[in-house]
Amino acid sequence: MENEKKVSMAVINRLPRYFRYLGDLLESDITRISSKELSVKMNITASQIRQDLNNFGGFGQQGYGYNVEYLYNEIKKILGLDRIYHLIVVGGGNIGQALVNYASFEKRGFVIQAVFDINPRLVGMTIRGVEVYDVDKMEEFVKNNDVDVAILTLPRSQAVKVANDLAKWGVKGMWNFSHVDLQVPEDVVVENVHLTDSLMTLLYKINEMYAEESDLHQLHHGLPIKPKKFEDINGADNEV
Amino acid sequence: MENEKKVSMAVINRLPRYFRYLGDLLESDITRISSKELSVKMNITASQIRQDLNNFGGFGQQGYGYNVEYLYNEIKKILGLDRIYHLIVVGGGNIGQALVNYASFEKRGFVIQAVFDINPRLVGMTIRGVEVYDVDKMEEFVKNNDVDVAILTLPRSQAVKVANDLAKWGVKGMWNFSHVDLQVPEDVVVENVHLTDSLMTLLYKINEMYAEESDLHQLHHGLPIKPKKFEDINGADNEV
Repeated sequence: MENEKKVSMAVINRLPRYFRYLGDLLESDITRISSKELSVKMNITASQIRQDLNNFGGFGQQGYGYNVEYLYNEIKKILGLDRIYHLIVVGGGNIGQALVNYASFEKRGFVIQAVFDINPRLVGMTIRGVEVYDVDKMEEFVKNNDVDVAILTLPRSQAVKVANDLAKWGVKGMWNFSHVDLQVPEDVVVENVHLTDSLMTLLYKINEMYAEESDLHQLHHGLPIKPKKFEDINGADNEV
Repeated sequence: MENEKKVSMAVINRLPRYFRYLGDLLESDITRISSKELSVKMNITASQIRQDLNNFGGFGQQGYGYNVEYLYNEIKKILGLDRIYHLIVVGGGNIGQALVNYASFEKRGFVIQAVFDINPRLVGMTIRGVEVYDVDKMEEFVKNNDVDVAILTLPRSQAVKVANDLAKWGVKGMWNFSHVDLQVPEDVVVENVHLTDSLMTLLYKINEMYAEESDLHQLHHGLPIKPKKFEDINGADNEV
């Protein structure tokens, strides 16, 4: 990476979203776009967009806007999506299998090499061509293959130990679906997807917006109600 | 909800994590805990914990700490987890099926009532006892049942329209796994789970930490390398 400046986590978390919108524009054969037009599409301010993209050298030109393909490719490089990544799935249950079956990952260069599980009924099977190995084989596999990321979809009781083992064997990224916070060394990057927490947050926001029990009742019976205002609802926090 | 004060989205996003830790303490028969002890466990500052919980009336007592069970139950009420929620899944593909198969939801009171899909091979099947209906039946179902949340796991090309229809029919919460930003009325709450974005963010952080190509090479060959410092890595942004 050429750029040595610190970039805030908030900006980084927004980059995949820029990348998605620019990809959509490219697919619609739109070759350039102003920060203002992009602002309307993405529902963030134009000045936010200019600020965000300035972090990476600012590719816009006044009066012309952004060259969509150029910007797409720059963000692709910034995100490191110009190469292939090797992933393993630890835990071949529902979510693990769903991720292996998710074809879009491969298109992006995310290649799942193997699944590991302790369940003898799963071991030896293949999921979309990806073999399920006994978890005993994991150490050897990780040491002999360049594994960039371990996707953890195993029960929370085992996730902390497994993550530590993987870290010891050299895996530097954990995409953690297990409902527990990992304790890994500082040089290992963790990104959590805590689905139950996400659903709880959603329910909290619904309850807050329709604060009176009777509101929901009225709603379900087609009676008009007025939603309470709620700071930030559908705001930036939701969008990444 | 009794409390009329605005609570910031950051605090709300942390509540499910408090709830999880307090549940763990309860299961371990720990009856009280100081903000300091909780701080060590959760890896956030004690003053942050006190501030967060003060938003909801502050249930701690100086010199005693927090009564775990009381606090657990209060947060449970705040999150609205003291009742049953009805959910439908729209899109019976991999992720949709995985969510229906996820037994922990039911334990929390999240009941999936039905799955909707356009695929005739899926329609009429049941997944863990939950019936898959043709999407044509969705309007009638939603109007005749109290559906709190629609889980959207359908292709992005259809997600925006379906979300709008559901909003029109009275669904107030969308848990959106489709890789697109929804455009729904202000009184509808959306919580996005953009998995590909999450994985991209993880890869960005790994690349940033191991900035030199050669680092990853050295790493995979067991040679020692020094990680670059990276602001906020494994910090609060990862934890919720």
